[in-house]
Amino acid sequence: MLNIGVLGSGNGSNFQAIVDAAKRGEFEGRVCCAVSDVADAYILERASKAGIPGRHIDCGPSKSKAEGVGAEKIVEYMRGCDVDFVVLAGFMRIVKDPLLSEFSGRMINIHPSLLPAFPGLASWKQALEYGVKVAGCTVHYVDAGMDTGPIVLQRCIPVIDDDTPESLHARIQKAEHVAYPEALNLISSGRVEVAGRKVRIVKD
Amino acid sequence: MLNIGVLGSGNGSNFQAIVDAAKRGEFEGRVCCAVSDVADAYILERASKAGIPGRHIDCGPSKSKAEGVGAEKIVEYMRGCDVDFVVLAGFMRIVKDPLLSEFSGRMINIHPSLLPAFPGLASWKQALEYGVKVAGCTVHYVDAGMDTGPIVLQRCIPVIDDDTPESLHARIQKAEHVAYPEALNLISSGRVEVAGRKVRIVKD
Repeated sequence: MLNIGVLGSGNGSNFQAIVDAAKRGEFEGRVCCAVSDVADAYILERASKAGIPGRHIDCGPSKSKAEGVGAEKIVEYMRGCDVDFVVLAGFMRIVKDPLLSEFSGRMINIHPSLLPAFPGLASWKQALEYGVKVAGCTVHYVDAGMDTGPIVLQRCIPVIDDDTPESLHARIQKAEHVAYPEALNLISSGRVEVAGRKVRIVKD
Repeated sequence: MLNIGVLGSGNGSNFQAIVDAAKRGEFEGRVCCAVSDVADAYILERASKAGIPGRHIDCGPSKSKAEGVGAEKIVEYMRGCDVDFVVLAGFMRIVKDPLLSEFSGRMINIHPSLLPAFPGLASWKQALEYGVKVAGCTVHYVDAGMDTGPIVLQRCIPVIDDDTPESLHARIQKAEHVAYPEALNLISSGRVEVAGRKVRIVKD
Protein backbone atom coordinates (compact mmCIF):
# COMPACT_ATOMS: atom_id res chain seq x y z
CA MET A 1 0.00 0.00 0.00
CA LEU A 2 1.74 3.17 -1.23
CA ASN A 3 1.42 6.35 0.80
CA ILE A 4 1.73 8.87 -1.98
CA GLY A 5 2.75 12.49 -1.70
CA VAL A 6 2.08 14.59 -4.79
CA LEU A 7 4.18 17.60 -5.74
CA GLY A 8 2.73 20.08 -8.24
CA SER A 9 2.96 23.69 -9.36
CA GLY A 10 -0.23 24.18 -11.30
CA ASN A 11 -3.63 22.86 -12.24
CA GLY A 12 -3.11 19.39 -10.79
CA SER A 13 -5.09 17.41 -13.35
CA ASN A 14 -2.77 14.43 -12.86
CA PHE A 15 -3.20 14.77 -9.08
CA GLN A 16 -6.94 14.54 -9.66
CA ALA A 17 -6.59 11.55 -12.00
CA ILE A 18 -4.51 9.72 -9.37
CA VAL A 19 -6.87 10.57 -6.52
CA ASP A 20 -9.83 9.36 -8.60
CA ALA A 21 -8.03 6.18 -9.68
CA ALA A 22 -7.11 5.41 -6.05
CA LYS A 23 -10.76 5.76 -5.07
CA ARG A 24 -11.71 3.33 -7.83
CA GLY A 25 -9.10 0.90 -6.52
CA GLU A 26 -6.98 0.99 -9.67
CA PHE A 27 -3.77 0.69 -7.66
CA GLU A 28 -2.79 -0.21 -4.12
CA GLY A 29 -2.25 3.16 -2.54
CA ARG A 30 -3.67 6.40 -1.31
CA VAL A 31 -2.74 10.02 -1.80
CA CYS A 32 -1.87 11.37 1.64
CA CYS A 33 -0.82 14.92 0.77
CA ALA A 34 -0.29 17.51 -1.93
CA VAL A 35 2.55 20.02 -1.82
CA SER A 36 2.92 23.02 -4.09
CA ASP A 37 5.70 25.54 -4.54
CA VAL A 38 3.06 27.96 -5.86
CA ALA A 39 0.80 29.48 -3.20
CA ASP A 40 -2.34 29.77 -5.34
CA ALA A 41 -1.88 26.64 -7.46
CA TYR A 42 -5.19 24.94 -8.23
CA ILE A 43 -3.74 21.60 -7.13
CA LEU A 44 -4.07 22.81 -3.52
CA GLU A 45 -7.74 23.63 -4.07
CA ARG A 46 -8.26 20.19 -5.58
CA ALA A 47 -6.61 18.66 -2.50
CA SER A 48 -8.85 20.66 -0.20
CA LYS A 49 -11.97 19.56 -2.14
CA ALA A 50 -10.82 15.93 -1.96
CA GLY A 51 -10.21 16.19 1.78
CA ILE A 52 -6.48 15.59 1.35
CA PRO A 53 -3.94 17.67 3.32
CA GLY A 54 -2.33 20.29 1.10
CA ARG A 55 0.53 22.64 1.83
CA HIS A 56 2.24 25.51 0.08
CA ILE A 57 5.97 25.34 0.69
CA ASP A 58 8.24 28.19 -0.37
CA CYS A 59 11.05 26.62 -2.36
CA GLY A 60 13.36 29.61 -2.28
CA PRO A 61 14.81 32.06 -4.77
CA SER A 62 15.56 29.69 -7.71
CA LYS A 63 12.37 29.20 -9.69
CA SER A 64 13.74 26.22 -11.58
CA LYS A 65 15.02 24.07 -8.69
CA ALA A 66 13.76 22.58 -5.43
CA GLU A 67 16.93 22.55 -3.36
CA GLY A 68 18.46 23.38 0.00
CA VAL A 69 16.11 24.67 2.69
CA GLY A 70 13.07 24.49 0.40
CA ALA A 71 13.75 20.85 -0.48
CA GLU A 72 14.31 20.12 3.23
CA LYS A 73 10.94 21.63 4.16
CA ILE A 74 9.25 19.38 1.61
CA VAL A 75 11.03 16.33 3.03
CA GLU A 76 9.97 17.23 6.58
CA TYR A 77 6.37 17.77 5.59
CA MET A 78 6.23 14.56 3.58
CA ARG A 79 7.79 12.59 6.44
CA GLY A 80 5.13 14.03 8.74
CA CYS A 81 2.49 12.69 6.35
CA ASP A 82 4.15 9.23 6.28
CA VAL A 83 4.82 9.56 2.55
CA ASP A 84 6.77 6.64 1.15
CA PHE A 85 6.40 7.44 -2.54
CA VAL A 86 6.44 10.80 -4.33
CA VAL A 87 4.61 11.58 -7.54
CA LEU A 88 5.42 14.73 -9.49
CA ALA A 89 2.38 16.20 -11.18
CA GLY A 90 3.29 19.32 -13.10
CA PHE A 91 6.04 20.25 -10.65
CA MET A 92 8.04 22.90 -12.48
CA ARG A 93 11.32 22.59 -10.58
CA ILE A 94 14.21 20.18 -10.94
CA VAL A 95 14.38 18.10 -7.77
CA LYS A 96 17.66 18.40 -5.87
CA ASP A 97 18.95 17.10 -2.55
CA PRO A 98 17.88 16.50 0.14
CA LEU A 99 14.51 15.78 -1.54
CA LEU A 100 16.05 13.72 -4.35
CA SER A 101 18.17 11.49 -2.09
CA GLU A 102 15.35 11.08 0.47
CA PHE A 103 13.07 9.58 -2.15
CA SER A 104 15.68 8.06 -4.44
CA GLY A 105 14.04 5.21 -6.37
CA ARG A 106 10.71 6.22 -4.83
CA MET A 107 9.82 9.23 -6.96
CA ILE A 108 8.28 9.32 -10.43
CA ASN A 109 7.36 12.00 -12.92
CA ILE A 110 5.19 12.09 -16.01
CA HIS A 111 6.45 13.99 -19.02
CA PRO A 112 4.29 15.01 -22.00
CA SER A 113 6.47 13.49 -24.73
CA LEU A 114 8.00 10.23 -25.83
CA LEU A 115 11.34 10.78 -24.10
CA PRO A 116 14.17 11.20 -24.97
CA ALA A 117 12.43 13.40 -27.57
CA PHE A 118 11.39 16.86 -26.38
CA PRO A 119 12.54 17.09 -22.77
CA GLY A 120 11.97 20.34 -20.90
CA LEU A 121 9.17 22.85 -21.22
CA ALA A 122 6.07 22.78 -23.46
CA SER A 123 6.95 19.49 -25.18
CA TRP A 124 3.72 19.63 -27.17
CA LYS A 125 4.88 22.89 -28.79
CA GLN A 126 8.30 21.41 -29.48
CA ALA A 127 6.61 18.38 -31.06
CA LEU A 128 4.40 20.50 -33.32
CA GLU A 129 7.34 22.67 -34.38
CA TYR A 130 9.41 19.60 -35.23
CA GLY A 131 6.51 18.13 -37.18
CA VAL A 132 6.31 14.69 -35.57
CA LYS A 133 3.33 12.48 -36.39
CA VAL A 134 3.33 10.60 -33.09
CA ALA A 135 3.43 12.15 -29.63
CA GLY A 136 2.80 10.67 -26.20
CA CYS A 137 3.76 10.63 -22.57
CA THR A 138 6.44 9.00 -20.45
CA VAL A 139 6.33 7.93 -16.80
CA HIS A 140 9.88 7.79 -15.44
CA TYR A 141 11.76 7.64 -12.19
CA VAL A 142 13.26 10.95 -11.15
CA ASP A 143 17.02 11.25 -11.21
CA ALA A 144 19.37 14.23 -11.06
CA GLY A 145 18.81 15.16 -14.73
CA MET A 146 15.91 16.88 -16.43
CA ASP A 147 13.48 14.20 -17.67
CA THR A 148 16.25 11.61 -17.90
CA GLY A 149 15.40 8.87 -15.38
CA PRO A 150 14.58 5.20 -16.09
CA ILE A 151 11.31 4.80 -18.00
CA VAL A 152 8.42 2.84 -16.47
CA LEU A 153 6.02 3.17 -19.38
CA GLN A 154 5.23 5.23 -22.45
CA ARG A 155 2.00 5.76 -24.33
CA CYS A 156 1.65 7.00 -27.94
CA ILE A 157 -1.01 9.28 -29.34
CA PRO A 158 -1.33 10.56 -32.90
CA VAL A 159 -0.57 14.14 -33.90
CA ILE A 160 -3.29 15.45 -36.21
CA ASP A 161 -2.59 17.89 -39.06
CA ASP A 162 -4.92 20.52 -37.62
CA ASP A 163 -3.56 20.26 -34.07
CA THR A 164 -2.91 23.45 -32.18
CA PRO A 165 -0.60 23.42 -29.16
CA GLU A 166 -3.76 23.36 -27.02
CA SER A 167 -5.47 20.46 -28.80
CA LEU A 168 -2.29 18.36 -28.80
CA HIS A 169 -1.61 19.15 -25.15
CA ALA A 170 -5.18 18.11 -24.25
CA ARG A 171 -4.81 14.77 -26.08
CA ILE A 172 -1.49 14.08 -24.36
CA GLN A 173 -2.99 14.92 -20.95
CA LYS A 174 -5.83 12.48 -21.56
CA ALA A 175 -3.20 9.77 -22.14
CA GLU A 176 -1.34 10.89 -19.00
CA HIS A 177 -4.43 10.49 -16.84
CA VAL A 178 -4.56 6.82 -17.85
CA ALA A 179 -0.81 6.17 -17.89
CA TYR A 180 -0.05 7.54 -14.43
CA PRO A 181 -2.48 5.25 -12.54
CA GLU A 182 -1.25 2.34 -14.71
CA ALA A 183 2.32 3.03 -13.64
CA LEU A 184 1.28 3.30 -9.98
CA ASN A 185 -0.51 -0.01 -10.30
CA LEU A 186 2.65 -1.68 -11.62
CA ILE A 187 4.77 -0.12 -8.88
CA SER A 188 2.36 -0.67 -5.97
CA SER A 189 1.94 -4.32 -6.89
CA GLY A 190 5.70 -4.83 -6.75
CA ARG A 191 6.04 -5.67 -10.42
CA VAL A 192 8.62 -3.02 -11.33
CA GLU A 193 12.32 -3.84 -11.26
CA VAL A 194 14.88 -1.16 -12.06
CA ALA A 195 18.39 -2.12 -13.20
CA GLY A 196 20.44 0.82 -14.41
CA ARG A 197 18.37 2.56 -17.09
CA LYS A 198 16.18 -0.48 -17.71
CA VAL A 199 12.83 -1.00 -16.05
CA ARG A 200 11.43 -4.52 -16.23
CA ILE A 201 7.80 -5.30 -15.59
CA VAL A 202 7.52 -8.62 -13.77
CA LYS A 203 4.59 -10.68 -15.01
CA ASP A 204 1.59 -11.22 -12.70
CA MET B 1 2.77 7.38 -61.50
CA LEU B 2 6.10 7.59 -59.66
CA ASN B 3 9.23 6.29 -61.33
CA ILE B 4 11.16 5.26 -58.29
CA GLY B 5 14.91 4.81 -57.97
CA VAL B 6 16.04 3.03 -54.83
CA LEU B 7 19.41 3.66 -53.18
CA GLY B 8 20.71 1.07 -50.73
CA SER B 9 23.90 -0.25 -49.16
CA GLY B 10 22.84 -3.59 -47.76
CA ASN B 11 20.21 -6.28 -47.56
CA GLY B 12 17.50 -4.26 -49.28
CA SER B 13 14.51 -5.59 -47.35
CA ASN B 14 12.73 -2.26 -47.77
CA PHE B 15 13.53 -2.35 -51.50
CA GLN B 16 11.82 -5.74 -51.60
CA ALA B 17 8.82 -4.52 -49.60
CA ILE B 18 8.38 -1.61 -52.01
CA VAL B 19 8.77 -3.78 -55.13
CA ASP B 20 6.20 -6.24 -53.73
CA ALA B 21 3.79 -3.47 -52.72
CA ALA B 22 4.05 -1.91 -56.20
CA LYS B 23 3.18 -5.26 -57.75
CA ARG B 24 0.14 -5.51 -55.48
CA GLY B 25 -0.90 -2.01 -56.60
CA GLU B 26 -0.55 -0.48 -53.14
CA PHE B 27 0.70 2.78 -54.58
CA GLU B 28 0.84 4.45 -57.98
CA GLY B 29 4.37 3.82 -59.05
CA ARG B 30 7.03 1.38 -60.14
CA VAL B 31 10.60 0.75 -59.09
CA CYS B 32 12.74 1.42 -62.14
CA CYS B 33 16.21 0.89 -60.72
CA ALA B 34 18.33 0.04 -57.68
CA VAL B 35 21.69 1.67 -57.03
CA SER B 36 24.18 0.58 -54.41
CA ASP B 37 27.44 2.08 -53.22
CA VAL B 38 28.45 -1.44 -52.09
CA ALA B 39 29.43 -3.80 -54.91
CA ASP B 40 28.18 -7.01 -53.32
CA ALA B 41 25.12 -5.61 -51.52
CA TYR B 42 22.22 -8.06 -51.53
CA ILE B 43 19.89 -5.29 -52.72
CA LEU B 44 21.49 -5.66 -56.19
CA GLU B 45 20.78 -9.40 -56.19
CA ARG B 46 17.20 -8.69 -55.17
CA ALA B 47 16.94 -6.23 -58.10
CA SER B 48 18.32 -8.81 -60.49
CA LYS B 49 15.84 -11.43 -59.26
CA ALA B 50 12.98 -8.95 -59.65
CA GLY B 51 14.07 -8.05 -63.19
CA ILE B 52 14.85 -4.47 -62.19
CA PRO B 53 18.00 -2.75 -63.44
CA GLY B 54 20.63 -2.56 -60.70
CA ARG B 55 23.94 -0.78 -60.64
CA HIS B 56 26.90 -0.53 -58.31
CA ILE B 57 28.24 3.00 -58.28
CA ASP B 58 31.49 3.83 -56.55
CA CYS B 59 30.77 6.80 -54.29
CA GLY B 60 34.36 7.73 -53.64
CA PRO B 61 36.70 7.79 -50.66
CA SER B 62 34.34 9.08 -47.94
CA LYS B 63 32.37 6.13 -46.61
CA SER B 64 29.82 8.35 -44.86
CA LYS B 65 28.84 10.67 -47.71
CA ALA B 66 27.57 10.50 -51.28
CA GLU B 67 29.04 13.65 -52.76
CA GLY B 68 30.95 15.10 -55.71
CA VAL B 69 31.71 12.75 -58.59
CA GLY B 70 30.03 9.78 -56.90
CA ALA B 71 26.82 11.72 -56.34
CA GLU B 72 26.98 12.96 -59.94
CA LYS B 73 27.28 9.39 -61.26
CA ILE B 74 24.17 8.43 -59.33
CA VAL B 75 22.27 11.41 -60.74
CA GLU B 76 23.30 10.50 -64.29
CA TYR B 77 22.30 6.89 -63.89
CA MET B 78 18.97 7.78 -62.28
CA ARG B 79 18.23 10.30 -65.05
CA GLY B 80 18.96 7.60 -67.61
CA CYS B 81 16.34 5.42 -65.88
CA ASP B 82 13.79 8.29 -65.90
CA VAL B 83 13.71 8.33 -62.11
CA ASP B 84 11.53 11.10 -60.73
CA PHE B 85 11.50 10.03 -57.09
CA VAL B 86 14.28 8.55 -54.95
CA VAL B 87 13.77 6.19 -52.04
CA LEU B 88 16.61 5.48 -49.62
CA ALA B 89 16.53 1.94 -48.33
CA GLY B 90 19.39 1.33 -45.94
CA PHE B 91 21.67 3.76 -47.77
CA MET B 92 24.52 4.33 -45.33
CA ARG B 93 25.78 7.66 -46.66
CA ILE B 94 24.59 11.21 -46.08
CA VAL B 95 23.29 12.54 -49.40
CA LYS B 96 25.11 15.63 -50.65
CA ASP B 97 24.98 17.70 -53.84
CA PRO B 98 24.47 17.28 -56.72
CA LEU B 99 22.29 14.28 -55.72
CA LEU B 100 20.50 16.18 -52.94
CA SER B 101 19.63 19.22 -55.03
CA GLU B 102 18.66 17.12 -58.08
CA PHE B 103 15.97 15.31 -56.08
CA SER B 104 15.16 18.03 -53.55
CA GLY B 105 11.65 17.43 -52.26
CA ARG B 106 11.60 14.18 -54.24
CA MET B 107 13.66 11.94 -51.98
CA ILE B 108 12.57 10.10 -48.84
CA ASN B 109 14.24 7.92 -46.25
CA ILE B 110 13.01 5.55 -43.59
CA HIS B 111 14.69 5.61 -40.20
CA PRO B 112 14.31 2.90 -37.54
CA SER B 113 13.27 5.17 -34.67
CA LEU B 114 10.66 7.73 -33.72
CA LEU B 115 12.71 10.74 -34.76
CA PRO B 116 13.98 13.08 -33.38
CA ALA B 117 14.90 10.33 -30.88
CA PHE B 118 17.88 8.14 -31.84
CA PRO B 119 19.14 9.53 -35.14
CA GLY B 120 22.21 7.97 -36.71
CA LEU B 121 23.40 4.38 -36.58
CA ALA B 122 21.80 1.33 -34.94
CA SER B 123 18.84 3.22 -33.47
CA TRP B 124 17.43 0.00 -32.05
CA LYS B 125 20.55 -0.42 -29.90
CA GLN B 126 20.35 3.20 -28.81
CA ALA B 127 16.67 2.67 -27.89
CA LEU B 128 17.41 -0.44 -25.83
CA GLU B 129 20.30 1.26 -24.04
CA TYR B 130 18.11 4.25 -23.20
CA GLY B 131 15.36 1.96 -21.95
CA VAL B 132 12.42 3.31 -23.97
CA LYS B 133 9.16 1.37 -23.92
CA VAL B 134 8.02 2.48 -27.37
CA ALA B 135 10.07 2.36 -30.56
CA GLY B 136 9.09 2.77 -34.18
CA CYS B 137 10.01 4.07 -37.60
CA THR B 138 9.89 7.39 -39.40
CA VAL B 139 9.49 8.13 -43.11
CA HIS B 140 10.91 11.59 -43.83
CA TYR B 141 12.03 13.74 -46.70
CA VAL B 142 15.78 13.93 -47.09
CA ASP B 143 17.44 17.25 -46.34
CA ALA B 144 21.06 18.23 -45.73
CA GLY B 145 21.07 16.93 -42.15
CA MET B 146 21.26 13.42 -40.78
CA ASP B 147 17.71 12.11 -40.29
CA THR B 148 16.35 15.64 -39.88
CA GLY B 149 13.95 16.21 -42.82
CA PRO B 150 10.17 16.83 -42.68
CA ILE B 151 8.27 13.77 -41.43
CA VAL B 152 5.66 12.07 -43.64
CA LEU B 153 4.60 9.41 -41.18
CA GLN B 154 5.66 7.53 -38.07
CA ARG B 155 4.61 4.18 -36.71
CA CYS B 156 5.00 2.95 -33.11
CA ILE B 157 5.86 -0.53 -31.93
CA PRO B 158 6.30 -1.75 -28.35
CA VAL B 159 9.68 -2.56 -26.83
CA ILE B 160 9.47 -5.82 -24.90
CA ASP B 161 11.45 -6.46 -21.72
CA ASP B 162 13.22 -9.44 -23.22
CA ASP B 163 14.12 -7.71 -26.48
CA THR B 164 17.60 -8.14 -27.86
CA PRO B 165 18.94 -5.67 -30.43
CA GLU B 166 18.08 -8.30 -33.06
CA SER B 167 14.49 -8.92 -31.95
CA LEU B 168 13.75 -5.20 -31.64
CA HIS B 169 15.35 -4.46 -35.01
CA ALA B 170 13.24 -7.20 -36.62
CA ARG B 171 10.02 -5.77 -35.13
CA ILE B 172 10.91 -2.27 -36.34
CA GLN B 173 11.70 -3.58 -39.83
CA LYS B 174 8.33 -5.29 -40.00
CA ALA B 175 6.73 -1.90 -39.30
CA GLU B 176 8.97 -0.28 -41.92
CA HIS B 177 7.83 -2.69 -44.61
CA VAL B 178 4.26 -1.50 -44.07
CA ALA B 179 5.05 2.17 -43.46
CA TYR B 180 7.16 2.75 -46.57
CA PRO B 181 4.50 1.62 -49.09
CA GLU B 182 1.93 3.64 -47.08
CA ALA B 183 4.07 6.76 -47.43
CA LEU B 184 4.55 6.11 -51.16
CA ASN B 185 0.81 5.75 -51.54
CA LEU B 186 0.23 9.14 -49.89
CA ILE B 187 2.91 10.78 -52.03
CA SER B 188 2.01 9.13 -55.36
CA SER B 189 -1.64 10.07 -54.95
CA GLY B 190 -0.68 13.72 -54.48
CA ARG B 191 -1.95 13.93 -50.93
CA VAL B 192 1.27 15.13 -49.30
CA GLU B 193 1.90 18.85 -48.82
CA VAL B 194 5.17 20.05 -47.30
CA ALA B 195 5.40 23.50 -45.70
CA GLY B 196 8.63 24.08 -43.82
CA ARG B 197 8.99 21.20 -41.37
CA LYS B 198 5.30 20.31 -41.48
CA VAL B 199 3.87 17.65 -43.74
CA ARG B 200 0.11 17.74 -44.20
CA ILE B 201 -1.84 14.81 -45.54
CA VAL B 202 -4.66 16.07 -47.75
CA LYS B 203 -7.84 14.07 -47.26
CA ASP B 204 -9.02 11.78 -50.05
